[in-house]
Amino acid sequence: MVEKVAIAGLGLIGGSLARRLAARGVEVTAWNHRPHPYAQAEAEGIHCVPALDGLVDAEPDVLVLCNPLKAMPDMLHSLKPLLNAHPDITLTDVGSVKAEVRAQVAEAGLGECYVGAHPMAGNELSGWQAANPALYDNALWALTVDERTEYRRFLAVARLVADNVGNRLIVLDDDTHDSCAAMISHMPHVVATALINELVGDENRNIAAALAAGSWRDMTRVALTDPNRTRAMVDEDAANVEHLLRHMASRLTVVADNLRDGDADAIKSFFAEGQPFRDYKANGNGVETRNLPIPPQGWQQALLQSARRGEALTGFLDDRTARISTPKAM
Amino acid sequence: MVEKVAIAGLGLIGGSLARRLAARGVEVTAWNHRPHPYAQAEAEGIHCVPALDGLVDAEPDVLVLCNPLKAMPDMLHSLKPLLNAHPDITLTDVGSVKAEVRAQVAEAGLGECYVGAHPMAGNELSGWQAANPALYDNALWALTVDERTEYRRFLAVARLVADNVGNRLIVLDDDTHDSCAAMISHMPHVVATALINELVGDENRNIAAALAAGSWRDMTRVALTDPNRTRAMVDEDAANVEHLLRHMASRLTVVADNLRDGDADAIKSFFAEGQPFRDYKANGNGVETRNLPIPPQGWQQALLQSARRGEALTGFLDDRTARISTPKAM
Repeated sequence: MVEKVAIAGLGLIGGSLARRLAARGVEVTAWNHRPHPYAQAEAEGIHCVPALDGLVDAEPDVLVLCNPLKAMPDMLHSLKPLLNAHPDITLTDVGSVKAEVRAQVAEAGLGECYVGAHPMAGNELSGWQAANPALYDNALWALTVDERTEYRRFLAVARLVADNVGNRLIVLDDDTHDSCAAMISHMPHVVATALINELVGDENRNIAAALAAGSWRDMTRVALTDPNRTRAMVDEDAANVEHLLRHMASRLTVVADNLRDGDADAIKSFFAEGQPFRDYKANGNGVETRNLPIPPQGWQQALLQSARRGEALTGFLDDRTARISTPKAM
Repeated sequence: MVEKVAIAGLGLIGGSLARRLAARGVEVTAWNHRPHPYAQAEAEGIHCVPALDGLVDAEPDVLVLCNPLKAMPDMLHSLKPLLNAHPDITLTDVGSVKAEVRAQVAEAGLGECYVGAHPMAGNELSGWQAANPALYDNALWALTVDERTEYRRFLAVARLVADNVGNRLIVLDDDTHDSCAAMISHMPHVVATALINELVGDENRNIAAALAAGSWRDMTRVALTDPNRTRAMVDEDAANVEHLLRHMASRLTVVADNLRDGDADAIKSFFAEGQPFRDYKANGNGVETRNLPIPPQGWQQALLQSARRGEALTGFLDDRTARISTPKAM
């Protein structure tokens, strides 16, 4: 449990987090690049400050950067002298790409106090007006660490997420996070966009759109969201997305070849290959809970292996013993 | 309006159609390869017959084949002598691939009385127990014709769909139907399956699955349905699916190349390309209704062009004047 949290940026993610923490009794100090949310935020018990130094002067256990990624270098530059004067404050963020943020933090000379974080929460909306504490209901966070991360820094952010926000978390290195995010979000966004481009390029596009039912609607939904936001997301994780797109192109070409050759066995294998994921989805949510001792040495790898087994941290018995859920795994 | 309809096959699609038509006052005669639905069907006013000749002896305006595609050759072989004795009966079907059915119908020597049909209705269920008249609520049908189709045959099926079932319809040739169905359903099913295969093949698959949110869930939902059914669907439309998979592979490779090269303009173009479809989806459902005269010559092409404009037939003022809705178009 942490007592004081500072939040920079009261948009959808930061605003929802501030409201949720304040409602759960945490002392929250917040800053936003424009003051329009302040009156309502103050009414909800969120202490708002006019400048970044106010966030640091509040001496929070954790300072959460909820600003857009493009504002990150300027933010870090401004925070550097402030945080140097308050070395106990742990810095984290909520960005959807982690390697780039850690590089920016290191560039600003703030690497020692940083733990990466990415809450798997969000919707198509944005801004303080859309902020809602329920956005974090049942959310899972990915925290990212490296071999230099101090355990106490990790513990501060992990306890904030598990004890204060009331969420589950998994612990990864930045590259694992970014490649997995590319797999389940960034690359599929490109695929969905390629699908609508394929339809738009067809002379029978109105006919195809008229025939379209649930499968098409579901597979193209994400292509309908703001293409500039999607493009930024893909750009930020370009190498991973590129890699996975080549895999996908190769998989689709193999199926095309098999269809041309009438290779029934190969087609059958293609459709059987994903069975572990079908079984995983069919398994339901039978959650078993148990304790995971966290070793003093190699704790980063121990927690990564736990995540690979499909486990998530739900809380702490003490500083070196996590409670984990093992919902299901492939 | 037609008065008498015969239905072969009381599964999800045929059973739902029989129940809907009977409830709307049509004289329905039905046959099923197993008699288990008969007691309940008879109680709903559907006249059930023990053999195929009973369907033809009832002298329906339209005989609708709702059997699985794999049973089609045997069905047609059995129906051939019966329909030859009743040349006024129009034959149609409800299969999701049309060129192959027409070829089978022609092979059986029944091409003259045939009009293709594909109701865009269905769900993950199957069998009489799942049959539900509401399955056809607001459904769109694709009817398929060729240059040899007699107008009166088309009109019988079109009036059955519009006046009796109460649905909208568009009129296509078989190839246009099959390539559009490949676009919005068969090919995307392969893409969804390739996505789950990609995840299953990754050492971090449990982590990726844990991070997965709405975009992944929606884009892979259809890959969770019975892979054997999907495989059969893809096999039946193999050439179109192959063609579209190669297009998709090429599109994904181009984006991968652009990401590698950091070609921001090309990436921007890629995300802009599908804008007509985004606009189309955002346009809502402002339906304008007007009359479409159907010319005696070239009616097939006239109706295909209407479908290309995004129009759908909703009924008939008289035998040569359709009512059409023009909801929206790209």
